[in-house]
Amino acid sequence: MYFPQPLAKLIEQLRRLPGVGPKSAQRLAFHLLHLPPEEALKLADAIVEARSKLSYCANCFNLTENELCDYCASEYRDSSVICVVQEPRDIAAIEKTREFKGLYHVLQGALSPMEGIGPDQIRIQELLKRLAAHEVTELILATSPNVEGEATAMYIARLVKPLGVKVTRIAHGMPVGGDLEYVDEVTLIKALENRREM
Amino acid sequence: MYFPQPLAKLIEQLRRLPGVGPKSAQRLAFHLLHLPPEEALKLADAIVEARSKLSYCANCFNLTENELCDYCASEYRDSSVICVVQEPRDIAAIEKTREFKGLYHVLQGALSPMEGIGPDQIRIQELLKRLAAHEVTELILATSPNVEGEATAMYIARLVKPLGVKVTRIAHGMPVGGDLEYVDEVTLIKALENRREM
Repeated sequence: MYFPQPLAKLIEQLRRLPGVGPKSAQRLAFHLLHLPPEEALKLADAIVEARSKLSYCANCFNLTENELCDYCASEYRDSSVICVVQEPRDIAAIEKTREFKGLYHVLQGALSPMEGIGPDQIRIQELLKRLAAHEVTELILATSPNVEGEATAMYIARLVKPLGVKVTRIAHGMPVGGDLEYVDEVTLIKALENRREM
Repeated sequence: MYFPQPLAKLIEQLRRLPGVGPKSAQRLAFHLLHLPPEEALKLADAIVEARSKLSYCANCFNLTENELCDYCASEYRDSSVICVVQEPRDIAAIEKTREFKGLYHVLQGALSPMEGIGPDQIRIQELLKRLAAHEVTELILATSPNVEGEATAMYIARLVKPLGVKVTRIAHGMPVGGDLEYVDEVTLIKALENRREM
């Protein structure tokens, strides 16, 4: 025990953050102790505030300070198209493209029998309710291109197609700027399958 | 602006930590929002507590919750040997060797005219006072082996030698387990200079 107790405790808490090893935790702790006090407390306050003020949008389950998130509350978004994502952070990735003007639906996870996550553990019922209550012409499934994400997309597609809603899946293929030599086989297979005439 | 304000604020605060880029800051923020609330607040509390409870040892300027740090307060440490380091974290590095049983003196920096840090900005006067008040037989200078650390060590050695105290400097040389091929030139020069007969 080389550190006084409050410092050891701070290091231990920082150590729990993802990607922070024992050395980084020490460095972060000493950094926080070196800052002017008000600067260090800003981080503590931001944590407390984020935890207390943020909740989930009543419509799409994105993070929000209000009852509805900014997208659901906006009159400029096209409510006839819904993009289904796994996590709130996925919305930021899609928004950065500036290509999508519809609404979102955040599942807050993906189907994973191994981890005991079935259809009732993610926001699928809530999605069906939205489709029943509002006129939706297209549902874009933007879950991750891995086993869980694919299974979730297939499950939702099977449920939603009979309702007469057009269901689409984001495309698989070569990442732009990627090198054929370094791309994995499965992606290359998908890229060949989805080839387009030029 | 893709995130609700409390989340954006948390990301911004995390972004200011050393080694945390925009992507990691986002990942850390979402991690903190995913945790059970009491777990996330533990980090906030640890920051507040560390900042409020820790201060500097009145004798050696290490971090402590009390007036004196554990080393200065201990009756098992040899008060006739003082090891001078730049920062409190350097003490942990030396303690891990389990080789040193003396006391420490934390300068809280190193001389750096470029950054406007002169002898009065670091704890050199306090070191001289300790040497005047207590019987010290050896002063080990363990400042960093870079320009600022070397300059600081030389400056202190010049001040302290006339007081009749033995002043030593930690050795330069090859890191144990290091590979000759990869060691930098300056270290290799020092390792040759400090060669010992076998």
